[in-house]
Amino acid sequence: MTIVAPKTPNLALKLPTDEGILLVEGEDRPGLVRAISSALSESGANIVSLDQYTDDPEGGHFFQRTVFHVDDFAAVRLAIEASLDAALGGGLDLTWTLADRSAPKRVAILASTSDHCLLDLLWRQRRGEIPMTVPMVISNHTVVADDVRSFGIPFVHVPSQGPDKSAAEERILELLVGNVDVVVLARYMQILSEDFLERIGVPVINIHHSFLPAFIGAAPYRKAKERGVKLIGATAHYVTGDLDEGPIIEQDVVRVTHADTAVDLQRRGADVERAVLARAVAWHCQDRVIRHGRETVVFQP
Amino acid sequence: MTIVAPKTPNLALKLPTDEGILLVEGEDRPGLVRAISSALSESGANIVSLDQYTDDPEGGHFFQRTVFHVDDFAAVRLAIEASLDAALGGGLDLTWTLADRSAPKRVAILASTSDHCLLDLLWRQRRGEIPMTVPMVISNHTVVADDVRSFGIPFVHVPSQGPDKSAAEERILELLVGNVDVVVLARYMQILSEDFLERIGVPVINIHHSFLPAFIGAAPYRKAKERGVKLIGATAHYVTGDLDEGPIIEQDVVRVTHADTAVDLQRRGADVERAVLARAVAWHCQDRVIRHGRETVVFQP
Amino acid sequence: MTIVAPKTPNLALKLPTDEGILLVEGEDRPGLVRAISSALSESGANIVSLDQYTDDPEGGHFFQRTVFHVDDFAAVRLAIEASLDAALGGGLDLTWTLADRSAPKRVAILASTSDHCLLDLLWRQRRGEIPMTVPMVISNHTVVADDVRSFGIPFVHVPSQGPDKSAAEERILELLVGNVDVVVLARYMQILSEDFLERIGVPVINIHHSFLPAFIGAAPYRKAKERGVKLIGATAHYVTGDLDEGPIIEQDVVRVTHADTAVDLQRRGADVERAVLARAVAWHCQDRVIRHGRETVVFQP
Amino acid sequence: MTIVAPKTPNLALKLPTDEGILLVEGEDRPGLVRAISSALSESGANIVSLDQYTDDPEGGHFFQRTVFHVDDFAAVRLAIEASLDAALGGGLDLTWTLADRSAPKRVAILASTSDHCLLDLLWRQRRGEIPMTVPMVISNHTVVADDVRSFGIPFVHVPSQGPDKSAAEERILELLVGNVDVVVLARYMQILSEDFLERIGVPVINIHHSFLPAFIGAAPYRKAKERGVKLIGATAHYVTGDLDEGPIIEQDVVRVTHADTAVDLQRRGADVERAVLARAVAWHCQDRVIRHGRETVVFQP
Repeated sequence: MTIVAPKTPNLALKLPTDEGILLVEGEDRPGLVRAISSALSESGANIVSLDQYTDDPEGGHFFQRTVFHVDDFAAVRLAIEASLDAALGGGLDLTWTLADRSAPKRVAILASTSDHCLLDLLWRQRRGEIPMTVPMVISNHTVVADDVRSFGIPFVHVPSQGPDKSAAEERILELLVGNVDVVVLARYMQILSEDFLERIGVPVINIHHSFLPAFIGAAPYRKAKERGVKLIGATAHYVTGDLDEGPIIEQDVVRVTHADTAVDLQRRGADVERAVLARAVAWHCQDRVIRHGRETVVFQP
Repeated sequence: MTIVAPKTPNLALKLPTDEGILLVEGEDRPGLVRAISSALSESGANIVSLDQYTDDPEGGHFFQRTVFHVDDFAAVRLAIEASLDAALGGGLDLTWTLADRSAPKRVAILASTSDHCLLDLLWRQRRGEIPMTVPMVISNHTVVADDVRSFGIPFVHVPSQGPDKSAAEERILELLVGNVDVVVLARYMQILSEDFLERIGVPVINIHHSFLPAFIGAAPYRKAKERGVKLIGATAHYVTGDLDEGPIIEQDVVRVTHADTAVDLQRRGADVERAVLARAVAWHCQDRVIRHGRETVVFQP
Repeated sequence: MTIVAPKTPNLALKLPTDEGILLVEGEDRPGLVRAISSALSESGANIVSLDQYTDDPEGGHFFQRTVFHVDDFAAVRLAIEASLDAALGGGLDLTWTLADRSAPKRVAILASTSDHCLLDLLWRQRRGEIPMTVPMVISNHTVVADDVRSFGIPFVHVPSQGPDKSAAEERILELLVGNVDVVVLARYMQILSEDFLERIGVPVINIHHSFLPAFIGAAPYRKAKERGVKLIGATAHYVTGDLDEGPIIEQDVVRVTHADTAVDLQRRGADVERAVLARAVAWHCQDRVIRHGRETVVFQP
Repeated sequence: MTIVAPKTPNLALKLPTDEGILLVEGEDRPGLVRAISSALSESGANIVSLDQYTDDPEGGHFFQRTVFHVDDFAAVRLAIEASLDAALGGGLDLTWTLADRSAPKRVAILASTSDHCLLDLLWRQRRGEIPMTVPMVISNHTVVADDVRSFGIPFVHVPSQGPDKSAAEERILELLVGNVDVVVLARYMQILSEDFLERIGVPVINIHHSFLPAFIGAAPYRKAKERGVKLIGATAHYVTGDLDEGPIIEQDVVRVTHADTAVDLQRRGADVERAVLARAVAWHCQDRVIRHGRETVVFQP
């Protein structure tokens, strides 16, 4: 494994300091907003923005994203956490996570031979558009190696021939477990096992093409062309054991016409894939997404 | 059957006079554009706009839409047709249709209980946005009767209970055959038989909801909600014997969020359904759509 | 003045009962979210959704929209208001308004001869898409009278010839003051005096065409056509003494091409005008908009 | 001037061979489509697609874009040109240009310190999305030098201090005249003289921010923020002596909210600037744009 020194450190990324993002979810009951805001207030924090949503006024599920400012966040973080534990633990049955806005998410990217989603993410990372660092790109091929390294980012080749993927998955787990906060599949054309998804221990985001109506199976762009579709789409979602069926983070479409060939459709599809994946990764890294069963709550900017 | 005298005749609809629209399609071969433009030119016509498309430069299929101006179109129409017959008939194996831009298409609308698509079409017709007249609205229910008649448009109730739809279809055929140029299903919740489609003798346009990915069967909005879709869509298509699988004319989507309930999704779906159906009907009535197998060629404005 | 009994009462409008919407704004300081949520919580209210925004973490301005559920809202409303007064009054220097979600806003519409924005609003009102009633439409012309009355809505003609508009404004004030919650100018081609705006005592919403770049003065569509613009837009805003310069609520554009004539541009402009005005009015009636100086904060659905 | 050998030649760019694009414009008269298609047909060419537009059926201006296939285009090009000269020259007063689809346009890019438009173009060029080569990037600063060279593209620094720009313009003319087909100003913050525009001899394309309504002069994003605009836009246009007033090729907008700061607006503005410029450059390089006075005719894909 070759580690190349970053040529262009992510100078563009200017993250706010002394700001935290608190995500809370759980069974709704009266007084939750008050309990959370009181806990923050007593810790000296001032709320900068707050989005709250309950999926049913009667007996629903509660979701809240709070951005707050507090002097010396690093110093008082433990005290805030204790205060939140006292307020939200116990009988309330809430789940919460606290993130430091000055710390970018560590994102590993897995790719195969297509570069459109991969390079788009690396480019946006370099431009400071997404609060993330990319400690490593892993591919089962080597065609994207040079491009990845030209961004100053390590590239690791983990071949994956044959029907048994366990050795490749083992190698990826060795490289990533403990080192990253999220894994992004940027057109990685391998199915990950449930065992892998469990052991990786962090969310995995995938992108795939989508159509209205659906064209299932092989050669979807050819089938879509035959039916004369007028829109080509993409869906970014969290990966679960149920292939391509995980909670949706973002979707979008692009308009096509009869004059687009199946190859054109694929190219337009690539455009919308990279745009949708970039938004999904950005929102995840900005702690805007809460998973809830087969759904997501996305507090959009 | 009550015929109400139109209160507000379609005053807004100002169609160009002395202009024709010629649609030609067939096997591509060298010289077709020249042959068509020569035939028009020799008839004294001047081309106003021309869109031509071939789906494969080698051995493909040829499509052309030509708008032309000619003095006294009604007087010279037969001569133009003869000239086109001479030029395009014979060995060239082309299909062509000629339309008079000053003559709006006669559009029958079939509806059930939902009024969003129906009223949107009637309203646009009244505003002169679509070159059409609506000689009749037929429904298997009566809830939309008053609204339809308030536009000065005849409403006919053709009940359709029971599993045997043949009597209802027979009645609709009696009313429509020979009287209309196109039939629009504006959320008409009855499946039309292949026999009906054959005997009606004019194109039938349908609208249905669509999602990326597809949610098939009953309660699609509830299923889409459970999966957390971010886009709700609609597809307008020509009806063939293969239910909901005919050539697509237009599609669009609208953005939804986690905060939209299944009922909200249905309402947003209704919005996009009426917009998509209105565009499909307008383009059809403007002779912008050529069917070709399971596909359409749409020469958009 | 003829009052026509509504033929089609707004049956489609099903508003939530026992829900309130609280808008709060003022100088930001620590603890505001907590103070508000505590006041609601102590009154037995449960927060359904909450959007909060501060325009600057240090010394900024605070905005919050809270939707809450409480049993028997009408019965406990006074108690909630007292509790909010106690919590938010005094030194905190906050402004707040409390709305009952079951009570639609009373919207007067002023129009001239164009009907596209007017009819679009009446139609959406009838379909229950906007939580509003329309007690009255006033016009300085009579061309829209029949259409308005066909919706079962009173139409009042207030002529406005000559340079002195004070008599017309006086008459409109007599009709509207105390009777409506908001006035919408749906292409009302009269400039309202500052005196009128002060005495009407409720917000006034206007719609006008907009281009990038701007084409100022008479015949904007012709000028836009000459320059070959590719987008036609519209802006909905609150009316202030500074004509067409009030706080913007919503804007949108529609794509046009070289093939669109100046008349086409105007028609496409009408489409986007009515869509933008409808969204602005809906958001206002849903208490989603807070005015702040020359800006608005819009908590979008 | 350092010329770096291209590391990644534009392998992705696969242009059709044996295809020509013919643009024709001039005073409309009967028979033009026929004359053009006859000339092509007699040269053995087969029309692949044809777009024709006349801005007024009576005495208007004629525009046509024709893509045709002919065996051995390079060999027969002169014969086709002679045939077109015979058919379209003489009394018809038409202007025409013929392009070889296999030959990418040579595009020089001028930039200053902003890299978003510049890098977007270089990246799309590398991905083969635009039929162009970039022989050279010129900047009056050096900050983008490394990035440009990492694409294997020559970077030339032409400083432009002081009020007299004639030396800088002279140097740019030396470098570009005869070597490029089009010049793109990718946020080049220097005003080009009329003398330069005349002597450069090729079209110059510029991009600038645009708002509805317009905010003229310095600090437009701050002014737009103060007014609370909901859309941020960009306009790509041909440069004429009349600054920022040349024929518009493409425009687009992106949605913003109250939560976006003036800096955010600028960033969102950068996104839409690069997308709009990329489309304008692509359409120009695909010979889809015909200038006509202060307008353009764009035959969109």
